[in-house]
Amino acid sequence: MPAGPLSPGDTDTELHGVRLVVAYDGTDFCGFQKQAGQRTVQEDLERAAAQMAGHPVQIKAASRTDSGVHALGQVVAFDSRRAIPARGWMLGLHAHLPDDVRVQSASACAPGYNPRFDSLGKRYRYLLQLGEAKNPLLRHRAWQLGHIRVNPERMREAAQHLEGTHDFVAFRSADDERESTVRTLWSVAVLEGFADDPSLLALVVHGNAFMKNMVRIIAGTLVAVGRGRLKPNDMLGLLGPGADRAGAGDTAPAHGLTLLEVELGRLALQNA
Amino acid sequence: MPAGPLSPGDTDTELHGVRLVVAYDGTDFCGFQKQAGQRTVQEDLERAAAQMAGHPVQIKAASRTDSGVHALGQVVAFDSRRAIPARGWMLGLHAHLPDDVRVQSASACAPGYNPRFDSLGKRYRYLLQLGEAKNPLLRHRAWQLGHIRVNPERMREAAQHLEGTHDFVAFRSADDERESTVRTLWSVAVLEGFADDPSLLALVVHGNAFMKNMVRIIAGTLVAVGRGRLKPNDMLGLLGPGADRAGAGDTAPAHGLTLLEVELGRLALQNA
Repeated sequence: MPAGPLSPGDTDTELHGVRLVVAYDGTDFCGFQKQAGQRTVQEDLERAAAQMAGHPVQIKAASRTDSGVHALGQVVAFDSRRAIPARGWMLGLHAHLPDDVRVQSASACAPGYNPRFDSLGKRYRYLLQLGEAKNPLLRHRAWQLGHIRVNPERMREAAQHLEGTHDFVAFRSADDERESTVRTLWSVAVLEGFADDPSLLALVVHGNAFMKNMVRIIAGTLVAVGRGRLKPNDMLGLLGPGADRAGAGDTAPAHGLTLLEVELGRLALQNA
Repeated sequence: MPAGPLSPGDTDTELHGVRLVVAYDGTDFCGFQKQAGQRTVQEDLERAAAQMAGHPVQIKAASRTDSGVHALGQVVAFDSRRAIPARGWMLGLHAHLPDDVRVQSASACAPGYNPRFDSLGKRYRYLLQLGEAKNPLLRHRAWQLGHIRVNPERMREAAQHLEGTHDFVAFRSADDERESTVRTLWSVAVLEGFADDPSLLALVVHGNAFMKNMVRIIAGTLVAVGRGRLKPNDMLGLLGPGADRAGAGDTAPAHGLTLLEVELGRLALQNA
């Protein structure tokens, strides 16, 4: 892959949009978004893409995952003045990326494309490990509940109340300042024995859009129901414009959360 | 848990045997067995147990796993002069152990018990991730084959030849010097879509005893068959006293291997 300065012939004045699906292990990152003095996924991706493009690159992402949160299907995009085939980006970026970030696929897209404004829905998984015998292979992947016992049937009942279009103002971080707090959750599934492991309970949340910490607060609230601190019907009082964050459960630890998938619209194809 | 020097009353001249099932993430260990200047699971366990017992402790293990190899069901035992209930060992050891080693269960056993001499069988899993899109969450758990394509059906055919009682001299490390090289493999399963992940192929090997690197050489040989470098029937020539290590596949990387379970006999109960 070309990595040096641009030379005549392999560049032009046109901008070429590149869209990537990326996966990362969030353990050693201070989240996705660039911050001075911190290791972030955005910075690693920008550095790698700039080495191939031959000029500085700005990465736009569908989701700003928090410190410790993992991704299997994050979507990012950037513009390059150097024309490189999609497969070339995928293979070439790996040479410049650390092994905790991997490109899953690459495609051409419209220059200036921002996947954040093209996201129609997202799917997240929150993983719980049950039982006192904690699996050390899962310590950075699942919230290990240890002596906390939960009843999955109660959690499932509570989860069903969350499905639908509601005001989720009680399920967002205090520093989230978005104006509209109405979101639609198409499904909140409670999967026992996830991945053939009887100790795993997965919460898979699929919705149109999410506020800051929303999935982690949902996970913390479902655990509060599962252990008997809240009743499944308490969910009804937590949905609506007057609901109070303090009535919901704690924010579950970041390392149990994985962004599985971003569903995109058709903006990427415009002028691509 | 008591951690200071022994005081009269909580000790006696008797030895109390303790047996533990332990799980560990092998990534940051130089294997199980103690070595000067290296971080090992044995040393971490001995340090933690000594802090609770109030005297130096020698840990005996069912299996010496290599550097990078994981365990979900390693079995170890030691003797303590301090009488502590089994549940106390389990909970107390966690306070003294790093979070990449976790005790799964504890029980009383005969003093002097050595699980290595009581092992009737072991089950190992070797994990392969298929496809160019490497999952960074699995980079320390699975051999990521990347552009190497394998045919699971051919691997399954080869695996069936390995089942049974054979001379596995071609499937051991050059520095293994055990006299008998005959072992029985009860099953060698090739599981596609392991853990509900279509990119995962698990090789689960269940046998009475294993030589050094045996499972990793089996995994490397099955991959050689899967990619067409060996034929399933070539397994027949690799089994038997005259077979040559050079005819088998490479030793697969350590980090794909997990010791799942050790099946024990009844020696632990004698004089317990």
